[in-house]
Amino acid sequence: MIPVDDPERRARLVLSSIGEPGDPRLLSLVAEIGPVAVLEALREQSAYGELRDSLAERLATCRPGDVLAGAARRGIRFVVPGDPEWPESLADLASVPLLHQRGGVPLGLWVRGPLRLDEVAGGVAVVGSRSATGYGGRVAGDLGAALADSGRAVISGAAFGIDQSAHRGALAVRGPTVAVLACGADRAYPLAHAQLLALIAEEGLVVSEAAPGCAPTRVRFLARNRLIAALARGTVVVEAAARSGALNTANWADSLGRSVMGVPGPVTSAASQGVHHLIRARNALLVTGPADVLEAVSSAGENTVDQFSGPTHPRDALSIEHRQVLDAVPVGRPATVQQVARAAGTSIRSATQALEVLRGAELVAEVGDRWRLTPARE
Amino acid sequence: MIPVDDPERRARLVLSSIGEPGDPRLLSLVAEIGPVAVLEALREQSAYGELRDSLAERLATCRPGDVLAGAARRGIRFVVPGDPEWPESLADLASVPLLHQRGGVPLGLWVRGPLRLDEVAGGVAVVGSRSATGYGGRVAGDLGAALADSGRAVISGAAFGIDQSAHRGALAVRGPTVAVLACGADRAYPLAHAQLLALIAEEGLVVSEAAPGCAPTRVRFLARNRLIAALARGTVVVEAAARSGALNTANWADSLGRSVMGVPGPVTSAASQGVHHLIRARNALLVTGPADVLEAVSSAGENTVDQFSGPTHPRDALSIEHRQVLDAVPVGRPATVQQVARAAGTSIRSATQALEVLRGAELVAEVGDRWRLTPARE
Repeated sequence: MIPVDDPERRARLVLSSIGEPGDPRLLSLVAEIGPVAVLEALREQSAYGELRDSLAERLATCRPGDVLAGAARRGIRFVVPGDPEWPESLADLASVPLLHQRGGVPLGLWVRGPLRLDEVAGGVAVVGSRSATGYGGRVAGDLGAALADSGRAVISGAAFGIDQSAHRGALAVRGPTVAVLACGADRAYPLAHAQLLALIAEEGLVVSEAAPGCAPTRVRFLARNRLIAALARGTVVVEAAARSGALNTANWADSLGRSVMGVPGPVTSAASQGVHHLIRARNALLVTGPADVLEAVSSAGENTVDQFSGPTHPRDALSIEHRQVLDAVPVGRPATVQQVARAAGTSIRSATQALEVLRGAELVAEVGDRWRLTPARE
Repeated sequence: MIPVDDPERRARLVLSSIGEPGDPRLLSLVAEIGPVAVLEALREQSAYGELRDSLAERLATCRPGDVLAGAARRGIRFVVPGDPEWPESLADLASVPLLHQRGGVPLGLWVRGPLRLDEVAGGVAVVGSRSATGYGGRVAGDLGAALADSGRAVISGAAFGIDQSAHRGALAVRGPTVAVLACGADRAYPLAHAQLLALIAEEGLVVSEAAPGCAPTRVRFLARNRLIAALARGTVVVEAAARSGALNTANWADSLGRSVMGVPGPVTSAASQGVHHLIRARNALLVTGPADVLEAVSSAGENTVDQFSGPTHPRDALSIEHRQVLDAVPVGRPATVQQVARAAGTSIRSATQALEVLRGAELVAEVGDRWRLTPARE
């Protein structure tokens, strides 16, 4: 058994073990009067009737030393506000409206893995549908790899589909990645991702607001999504059908003032429907790849995307009048200056000048006293 | 020969026959002093040195009566400002900046087909790459059909790819469609679309700023694009690679204050690159189908898209606390109220109340004094 000497840390540990993740009743009380006072009040059964009744059963059986020792055996540490690796950015959760009656700054986070929590907090959340298409999986994997390669942690939820591809992309380049779970950090959910989660715990970070051993319930997923959004500097939704949980994460990111980004897809794909809605109606930024994402989550001036430009052609440099003359020069039988001028709707003087310029650019050639396009021209 | 009695109409006819479409030198002069005075000045060689020189060759040989008679033989009429079917909306072209040194209100339009020009002017431009993908072609065809079916004319450029699919979609439902050409309205460009253009001329409208017989030059395409944008109430770009002419049309629509819309596609598709750029960087509206387009081009209140909603499930109506209790009820071996309360993190009283509500919704069933999920539940 590991001693928990600091009373505040001990109180957070107990409350984290007995409370529901993101329960605003508990978290707002803690924000107001501190964890020690809240725990005392719950123990003395002196106040907070409904909340106290809800937690009475769990409080009666909670052994904080055992919880911590059990966590430590599984390589899990409990990080609380004030710890060196606690990310300051999570404080933003104190002042945003509840979604689905969840919210608030977590009491602490259960963390497993070699990375520092505060160092991954500048990362990017890459989330999306469990039922991703091949297209979505490919884009998520490419994004995960490129973002991690640029040093940004790829934060996601370890679910099937987009989450898995994003984590894998990051792992493939040996880059930082963080799985934020709705169950305890010791559990593998989904079970099929036990190996993925083990690798993330070994090289990245597995994080949960729920104490070790906790099962993943639907409501805990809703609370979990707010942490993905809050830990990341921006959230990219790669694919999301109409009711995808990824849209909940995007809503959290939006409330938190973080970048909300969406990867478009075919309008005929149900898996992109939710993303298109985010871009259309919720003002999410359309992103087409890692450069766009990095630009959105970087400080002004960093990682600016190059101005959009396509391939260029010598004729792009020409004035409109020279282009008109160029268009008037035949491919086949050469034409006189007079013929070119009439076809171009320009004077003979202008046509003559233009033809000299075009010859200089090797776009036209003189044949006797007539002109034709150079063979390379088309 | 058809007499052209009205001096202004006659002057417009001559200037239209000798001038380049969208030549701002000519069109701004006409806007300033009127077509009759411009034509006189060009004839007297008294002014406008460079412009006069440019047009001298063509002016010397222009026979306006012959032009009009030739057009009439091909079923083409010349519509000028002030005519009943002249669309008022084209006046917007008077006050927008030049693009590629083209701009201005056309002197007149050469029109072929049974529809009235002013009646199609509330339509929607559907434009895009000549090298469209199967996806883009399908979306353009669906859009063309649905928009035309709703009574909006589908305006495009009769090019390969997106344009063709959009026109075809409209024709397939016997709806209104308009092809705006860079060459004379009597010519088929591309030649492979001769049959398509003949059908549009028969049931819709073929329109050109260039007089009959004119060849399609690159510069004329740039001038043509402004007419597509100006005739339509909004422009949808379905697919556009980096240098697609459709982006030029979108720029015109933007300058004209018309809706600019883009259909997203896979970020891995080069054919969608230009569209994504429009949405990302140029603030074009992402549209996913005809309902979105109709909403954008309709007056406030008309054609409003239904609020986005996915399928619903009975549990969506539950409070968070009831959902927590539902999640705590096992699928297999039934649990006592105490067990459910502890798993849900709620009081026994609350759990009991919640279970009654859930039983009412047929989500859980009582087995003796224990509870389990109903078989239909998952």
